[in-house]
Amino acid sequence: MSMIAWPVPDPDLPSGIHPALADAASAAATAFRAARARHTRAELGEQVAMGADGTPTMRVDALVDEAIVESASRNRVNLLSEEAGFVDHGSAVTLVIDPVDGSSNAAMGLPLSCFAGAVVTDNTATEALTLWFDTGRTWWARAGEPTPYRTTGRTTLAGATVTMLRPKNNSFDAWLRVVGRADRVRVLATTCLEAALVADGSVDAFVDSGSNTHRIMDLAAAMVIVPAAGGVVLDVHGRPLDFDPDLTRRWSGLAAATPQLADELIQAVLG
Amino acid sequence: MSMIAWPVPDPDLPSGIHPALADAASAAATAFRAARARHTRAELGEQVAMGADGTPTMRVDALVDEAIVESASRNRVNLLSEEAGFVDHGSAVTLVIDPVDGSSNAAMGLPLSCFAGAVVTDNTATEALTLWFDTGRTWWARAGEPTPYRTTGRTTLAGATVTMLRPKNNSFDAWLRVVGRADRVRVLATTCLEAALVADGSVDAFVDSGSNTHRIMDLAAAMVIVPAAGGVVLDVHGRPLDFDPDLTRRWSGLAAATPQLADELIQAVLG
Repeated sequence: MSMIAWPVPDPDLPSGIHPALADAASAAATAFRAARARHTRAELGEQVAMGADGTPTMRVDALVDEAIVESASRNRVNLLSEEAGFVDHGSAVTLVIDPVDGSSNAAMGLPLSCFAGAVVTDNTATEALTLWFDTGRTWWARAGEPTPYRTTGRTTLAGATVTMLRPKNNSFDAWLRVVGRADRVRVLATTCLEAALVADGSVDAFVDSGSNTHRIMDLAAAMVIVPAAGGVVLDVHGRPLDFDPDLTRRWSGLAAATPQLADELIQAVLG
Repeated sequence: MSMIAWPVPDPDLPSGIHPALADAASAAATAFRAARARHTRAELGEQVAMGADGTPTMRVDALVDEAIVESASRNRVNLLSEEAGFVDHGSAVTLVIDPVDGSSNAAMGLPLSCFAGAVVTDNTATEALTLWFDTGRTWWARAGEPTPYRTTGRTTLAGATVTMLRPKNNSFDAWLRVVGRADRVRVLATTCLEAALVADGSVDAFVDSGSNTHRIMDLAAAMVIVPAAGGVVLDVHGRPLDFDPDLTRRWSGLAAATPQLADELIQAVLG
């Protein structure tokens, strides 16, 4: 297996961003770049541990998470991450972070993976950043403040472009129903980046068609960035999206340009 | 509908590239950047004509194709493109070009679209370039010469990551068979970029599971770049890949890391 030759640019960080979130994103990009420079694809994808969320941790996840744990410690904020779980620094602020969203893509060199982090206080996400590693592009929003992003505003599944998880056995019929009703379907395997694309109006929605794959850090950044752009983030089954340190919890998340489109997606998934 | 805010970098063109191919790629990037700067998403996606290949031409296709027609004229080479068809300048060299591969993505702002071109002499592609518009990344190869790209070398569909067209009615069962046997599936909707990712070992294969969607310019660059990296490009039904000015012809293309993987994909598609 070969090395991934492509560069990892420095992130384009907005001014005004929470310093702990900015530092975590920078640390993630630096660690991702170093991981790509030092390890083959096979090494990046090797399972090196079991994450706090109960799923296998690839080396690329572990290396970036390690950098984020150090960053949170340096900045004296709490951390909730897929790999490390909850790290308490006695702060009122918790960073909820997916160090490498789209880990399989990242390990293969498929340039669709990102860092995603949210600033959470009192169980509410107030600010979030998504960083696309291969381009340095960032999407940033603070809850309740204007953003440059607007969703497409589409209200119907007919005519829509929807990104989905790959079909899974436990939600296959629902997957087919969505595919049958949407105009276009993409499978990118990087939920956080897909949510950013919903926010900036490049796709109409993404949905997990009921496979219960998402952890809260897969959805945390979306919960700020998508509503700030006029869209909605929900669980297909109506379960509240909580920042719970219990990382065995799972959701079937969706992000949609409008509440109406979200309703149509839920109807398609539930049959 | 909104403007797409992201930049289009200058292409990273390799030294030694055929000057007419280099000029076409540069012209494509410049025209793509201008189109994105001047037109909303709705305008980019608007059908403005019927292409020489018998499919609707979006404005983004037309604008980039226009720049490529001018480039070919400037460089006194023949051109075979999706939109313009065959343009004869009495040259021994024909550029076979997909001006914007992944047009739907390009119009929406989903950053997965590319220019792909091949230099063809005597019905043989001798050199090719694929340019990912949103990053400026290029993949370039000359037939029979070493390249830095190596496919993954994977020989089995079990364990493989395969990119596919979205499921279509005329090939749905075959689509499901491939999904059932591969480890991971992605749907990116930009065949030429997917072929480049096969060449550089970031995915194992792409396949059109028998929907006969590909025109020759969807496969022309792959026919040089993928074999140069150790892989193969074939039609699922064994039809020869000809540079025929008759643009109504269609193929179900596949690119695979190895001939063995191609065989397994064909078996899965044909059932």
